[in-house]
Amino acid sequence: MILTVTLNAALDLTYRVPHLVPHASHRVREVTERPGGKGLNVARVLGALGFRTTVTGFVGGETGRVLRTLLAADAADAGPGSVTDALFQVAGRTRRTVGIVDETTGDTTQLNEPGPHITPEEWDGFLTAYRELLGRGAEAVALCGSLPPGVPVGAYATLVREARTAGIPVLLDTDGEPLRRGLAARPDIVKPNAEELAGITGTAEPLRAARAAQRRGAHAVAASLGADGMLLVTQDGAWSAAVPERLTGNPTGAGDSAVAGLLSGLAEELPWPDRLARAVALSAATVRSPVAGEFDEPTYARMLPSVRVRKAETP
Amino acid sequence: MILTVTLNAALDLTYRVPHLVPHASHRVREVTERPGGKGLNVARVLGALGFRTTVTGFVGGETGRVLRTLLAADAADAGPGSVTDALFQVAGRTRRTVGIVDETTGDTTQLNEPGPHITPEEWDGFLTAYRELLGRGAEAVALCGSLPPGVPVGAYATLVREARTAGIPVLLDTDGEPLRRGLAARPDIVKPNAEELAGITGTAEPLRAARAAQRRGAHAVAASLGADGMLLVTQDGAWSAAVPERLTGNPTGAGDSAVAGLLSGLAEELPWPDRLARAVALSAATVRSPVAGEFDEPTYARMLPSVRVRKAETP
Repeated sequence: MILTVTLNAALDLTYRVPHLVPHASHRVREVTERPGGKGLNVARVLGALGFRTTVTGFVGGETGRVLRTLLAADAADAGPGSVTDALFQVAGRTRRTVGIVDETTGDTTQLNEPGPHITPEEWDGFLTAYRELLGRGAEAVALCGSLPPGVPVGAYATLVREARTAGIPVLLDTDGEPLRRGLAARPDIVKPNAEELAGITGTAEPLRAARAAQRRGAHAVAASLGADGMLLVTQDGAWSAAVPERLTGNPTGAGDSAVAGLLSGLAEELPWPDRLARAVALSAATVRSPVAGEFDEPTYARMLPSVRVRKAETP
Repeated sequence: MILTVTLNAALDLTYRVPHLVPHASHRVREVTERPGGKGLNVARVLGALGFRTTVTGFVGGETGRVLRTLLAADAADAGPGSVTDALFQVAGRTRRTVGIVDETTGDTTQLNEPGPHITPEEWDGFLTAYRELLGRGAEAVALCGSLPPGVPVGAYATLVREARTAGIPVLLDTDGEPLRRGLAARPDIVKPNAEELAGITGTAEPLRAARAAQRRGAHAVAASLGADGMLLVTQDGAWSAAVPERLTGNPTGAGDSAVAGLLSGLAEELPWPDRLARAVALSAATVRSPVAGEFDEPTYARMLPSVRVRKAETP
């Protein structure tokens, strides 16, 4: 089982409008609701790839109830894999995110509510539940996304240490101070994007920045570089990879699919370059999917053998 | 008891963001949730004025559950009046509306979800419940807002006829084809704005248009003219009224407050000019309220004696 943690889970709403005009009133043509937050997206992709995945994090209120109902419906429809709900109930209300798709321009405008306030007792309760999940045979753990209010800024550092104590490989995908603190706890993999990596290292050149992040504690750094693919720095070597064609589409969730690629490769003990190729092909297949945050399986099958992996060298 | 009907009730969300930029991602600084839809706003104002009010219309899903919880909390906090929940439960989900307040410009961008689909059986069930409510001593009825999908376009005409058969004065506040059909059923009052009035009569000059709407069936026409106040055409005469100063603020809900003013004056059997003055003062006090859709009581108390009511004559 692969465990994904989404401390600030969300109910993602997508509104389609003919054209978004600030200060105007709009009739929403179509509303879709789905479970959201990075770790839930990672789990959805892992499920589609055939992996047994368990999701945890905080959930509460009426929005949390809808999220759990949708998660159960997804699980019932699941393909080869499965997603088990081990979310931790809190008194606060799960946040919503609203993505407004402008049908004229194709652009999405995003509004993200703040998360529920987590009490110290809830955080302690979650830690106990997390330790129990680690003990139930987790092969790998992914810690994903922002922290809701009330959770200590060093939360991910604590969760990384718990996983390492339990001997379970742990991937961290967050940004800012939670990433900086998490790095010091020596996660197996961090997956920042180029901007997040530059933000914590002060270095804009990706390979130098990735090596700097590695010196700060990460065993491996997988940096997503948008249309330029990904860069991977490990203790065994450094590689970059990209798909051979320029893709257009919706990049929402592409980073989460990359995390799923890295984790699935880790669970299957693939060599690093193969994990990287899988992450890059899944990202590309997500950009090409008509539904934000899902990957297009034929694109994935076509892309995977065509990903170019090269040794990376300091410029 | 005054009965307000909101067939397309909503859970109104207000998001405050530093500045709304299309295609960007925004952290919402503050989220507020409240019961929404015109008839629910009218009831809130009537409650604050000390009237016993009952609300009905369709409600369903998790959003409907939140709406009812908020309504019950409002009722517990109510001032002199009270609002009783007689909403009719359906299988569909109550719509949300999202108002995005740009803290830089002060402007609001509005997104309105479509309502739940109402089945013919649900519409029949509602009609039965509505007749029962009319029989419980309603002094006046207000029929407010748009129709959710599935409800017949002549729905308001049916509801007007039922009220008239029961001998209860009925006010209609809607637009487009539902207003056109509703007029033919001879409501006691219709309250269009200038644009809605022009839309159904083809006449842009408000007094001529109001007289045209009267000929189509309304006993009285109260037209809201934005910053120019209101125009009232009845079988006893025609009046216009406005506040003596130009007010700036948020006009959201000003029309609903005007409806509350007209209904409260009707319930107290005030002369027409006094009902009009009350409607205009409440509208102005709503524009000046810091919270959208609520009225500022000191502004109302100050405005009411200063409203200028004049006989209106065809230009």
